[in-house]
Amino acid sequence: MVRLIISGCNGRMGRVVETICSADPEFEIVAGFDLLGAAGDRDFPIYSSPSEFQGQADVVVDFSSPAALDALLEFGLQRRLPLVLATTGYSEQQLLDIDRAAGAIPIFRSANMSLGVNVLLQLVRSAVRALGEGFDLEIVERHHNKKVDAPSGTALMLADAAAEALPYTPEYVFDRQAVRKPRGKTEIGISSVRGGGIVGDHEVIFAGRDEVIELRHTALSRDVFASGAIRAAKFLAGITAPGLYTMSDLISL
Amino acid sequence: MVRLIISGCNGRMGRVVETICSADPEFEIVAGFDLLGAAGDRDFPIYSSPSEFQGQADVVVDFSSPAALDALLEFGLQRRLPLVLATTGYSEQQLLDIDRAAGAIPIFRSANMSLGVNVLLQLVRSAVRALGEGFDLEIVERHHNKKVDAPSGTALMLADAAAEALPYTPEYVFDRQAVRKPRGKTEIGISSVRGGGIVGDHEVIFAGRDEVIELRHTALSRDVFASGAIRAAKFLAGITAPGLYTMSDLISL
Amino acid sequence: MVRLIISGCNGRMGRVVETICSADPEFEIVAGFDLLGAAGDRDFPIYSSPSEFQGQADVVVDFSSPAALDALLEFGLQRRLPLVLATTGYSEQQLLDIDRAAGAIPIFRSANMSLGVNVLLQLVRSAVRALGEGFDLEIVERHHNKKVDAPSGTALMLADAAAEALPYTPEYVFDRQAVRKPRGKTEIGISSVRGGGIVGDHEVIFAGRDEVIELRHTALSRDVFASGAIRAAKFLAGITAPGLYTMSDLISL
Amino acid sequence: MVRLIISGCNGRMGRVVETICSADPEFEIVAGFDLLGAAGDRDFPIYSSPSEFQGQADVVVDFSSPAALDALLEFGLQRRLPLVLATTGYSEQQLLDIDRAAGAIPIFRSANMSLGVNVLLQLVRSAVRALGEGFDLEIVERHHNKKVDAPSGTALMLADAAAEALPYTPEYVFDRQAVRKPRGKTEIGISSVRGGGIVGDHEVIFAGRDEVIELRHTALSRDVFASGAIRAAKFLAGITAPGLYTMSDLISL
Repeated sequence: MVRLIISGCNGRMGRVVETICSADPEFEIVAGFDLLGAAGDRDFPIYSSPSEFQGQADVVVDFSSPAALDALLEFGLQRRLPLVLATTGYSEQQLLDIDRAAGAIPIFRSANMSLGVNVLLQLVRSAVRALGEGFDLEIVERHHNKKVDAPSGTALMLADAAAEALPYTPEYVFDRQAVRKPRGKTEIGISSVRGGGIVGDHEVIFAGRDEVIELRHTALSRDVFASGAIRAAKFLAGITAPGLYTMSDLISL
Repeated sequence: MVRLIISGCNGRMGRVVETICSADPEFEIVAGFDLLGAAGDRDFPIYSSPSEFQGQADVVVDFSSPAALDALLEFGLQRRLPLVLATTGYSEQQLLDIDRAAGAIPIFRSANMSLGVNVLLQLVRSAVRALGEGFDLEIVERHHNKKVDAPSGTALMLADAAAEALPYTPEYVFDRQAVRKPRGKTEIGISSVRGGGIVGDHEVIFAGRDEVIELRHTALSRDVFASGAIRAAKFLAGITAPGLYTMSDLISL
Repeated sequence: MVRLIISGCNGRMGRVVETICSADPEFEIVAGFDLLGAAGDRDFPIYSSPSEFQGQADVVVDFSSPAALDALLEFGLQRRLPLVLATTGYSEQQLLDIDRAAGAIPIFRSANMSLGVNVLLQLVRSAVRALGEGFDLEIVERHHNKKVDAPSGTALMLADAAAEALPYTPEYVFDRQAVRKPRGKTEIGISSVRGGGIVGDHEVIFAGRDEVIELRHTALSRDVFASGAIRAAKFLAGITAPGLYTMSDLISL
Repeated sequence: MVRLIISGCNGRMGRVVETICSADPEFEIVAGFDLLGAAGDRDFPIYSSPSEFQGQADVVVDFSSPAALDALLEFGLQRRLPLVLATTGYSEQQLLDIDRAAGAIPIFRSANMSLGVNVLLQLVRSAVRALGEGFDLEIVERHHNKKVDAPSGTALMLADAAAEALPYTPEYVFDRQAVRKPRGKTEIGISSVRGGGIVGDHEVIFAGRDEVIELRHTALSRDVFASGAIRAAKFLAGITAPGLYTMSDLISL
């Protein structure tokens, strides 16, 4: 049984963590933290400041905001509690603070909290090594029409993972319309599709002379980050050694 | 029973037409034309010049080269024979010559001889009209690594077909990497993937708030153009009215 | 401006209708009906019985339950108000009641309220007619692991739509494992994939000798039925002629 | 430079091996074996019996028939030459003979000679281990309409590879139509799509609550087995230790 604190428990992702963990007999939610304090009818006490919590817990899952980090790190360090930091948008200074705290307690933080995306990263590395030369690598990512950046950060993570495993330094190509020439052997084409409410799709294509392998990840909902954070919490609850853990550690287990 | 002449019978596509029609009881191959004359052991007589042929025929399927056009048009006009012109690369003047000949005999010519691509063009028009506003349209095409142009001509045909049916003039977008903004409502994104031996894939995506429709065409081999030409030959063999026919005429039947 | 009543406004789908219509300047939500009466802080009055509503409205969208039908039909008939019935599970008798009411007022009801699925049905009919012989038709549907029936009702609707357009009566095949023989020419294979939280995917495959066309619908969330009902409401608000309308009427506009 | 003998050089696959290796500067084709003897104009000598060959060679690639096995094994053993056996349909006794010969010379034989399919097998094992519980595994395979068996042997290989890596013994399910119940947690659904000229597609689906990973292999042409055999030949030409080698050995390099 993992005794869980949900930091940012009133936000959308905090509520998803609550829903999933309430239905999972391996979890007991012992408290919530939220700057706004108690809200609605919940099955656990909610504190506006971590320091108010006096009970026992095994791990904190945080989906609050960068503004809540200082108090959370202080709480974790004082109580020797592992922290799963699933909040995004930290400053450079905050990332350094997290690193320092990880010298004393186990902290889990990943650029992408989805288990599936992290598994895909490892499969891409394996496929690059196994297929060797003779396969052209292309990435197609699809997201909703409100996303402002292209390509997605995850598409670049996938390209970088492939690049690490390739025997040469690939060239990322985002537009083939301007030029009139056959594909260069060291290109990785990255295409960005935008439309409607697509949550997030990433497809890595290995195209050979006579066969094609496609590795594809589809997010069904943004809840996927909550699911990933919960897996991380189960993993971290069993860890005592201080350190900065990522999804790769969880997967390689 | 359709009595068929294969023009360009020694070329790769001419041989595919031979293979398919030999196995189809609706066809009898009565002759082949090829500038190189007879080659190998074939089941029909081969003439280096159409004028040498003295037999009876119902239709000619041509997969030769632009150089063979003049003699072929003259033959068709003299013998009142329908022509399926599946050769590509004609000059402007030759296209005018074809138009003029189509004033006297039935001639079939399509920018893309694949039945499936032409059906896809019609489905895209229907989908645009039926879905109306609220769906973002994107195109992803995939071809082998030797293709020099991007996007494919067929991808542009698909975008143009959608544009005809849309109530506004869309903007074709080939690269989203440079800019940092949400998708514009009138964009049609067109992405080109290149790799290995992919024959030719075209996917038209209609992405709405809560649902996505994808219409996809995959060519399994370049024989698809031979299959299309043979369908055109069956269609044209039953036509007596002069005119320039295209795949759309065949489909709307 | 369409003045809308949401019947079943406290349920999950009723709330989705509220969210979408609140953000759409073409709609004004004038009231909600719900057997449970008022619930939470809403921007419109909620009545436990339709007869209590004394205001003006243009159309009702109903996502309540079969138990609410009688009062709703009575309300629609008395007030001459068009009804969009998006509730499922009606009894045979209730379906007859709906038919009779449609003799006096416009009523909209569709077996599947998703616009996209209904567009797909029409595209499948068109594709069957356009491709003619030489293409094998197969359907693959995917749903979450809690769905108890297989194949999905929508997969059968798609197969039936194809069957109407085919020149022969197809045989639906659900299992190829038992037999050892090539595919029969009149088969329609229907495969059901079940897993995780997949909302609902339907793929219709037309496989020819040298090319494949795939028409695919993916539901991104169950909100898709709310979106469809809202489109139906816009459509029905402009209709005065009594009758039973379906998604096909909306699409063929 | 690898000096190659093509056994079964007059068959379709033998000719594909010739085409690919002629264009690869790493290969020199020094001879062909074929029961039919010389045929057509080829760039290397062809022998109807291996014993007639007196030259030097590094490896044999065999796409002949089980009838040619005895003479080939005898040749390999006498000349200490590595053999890539890409022929299918051996008897039980012949498989034993191959095993025995592999005690003296390097022999390469794989149930599926496609590199991509073998890489997919390893990726499936990795994905099963990395994703752990909470993901439902389903397989969809697609083949041409003349294939008599279902599911494909490769689909079963994929299911077996997953089964090895799973912590429980899965139940293979081929038909969900008959029963009315939610998906069982230990099921692996295997669906077989048949149509047109589809060469061979295999898709392994891992469906979780909020995300789906799909690993897909598409054969573009049957030449894929020749490509695989040629890779095996390059690999085996550098091996001196006797033994029975498979695609897994090649991939794990």
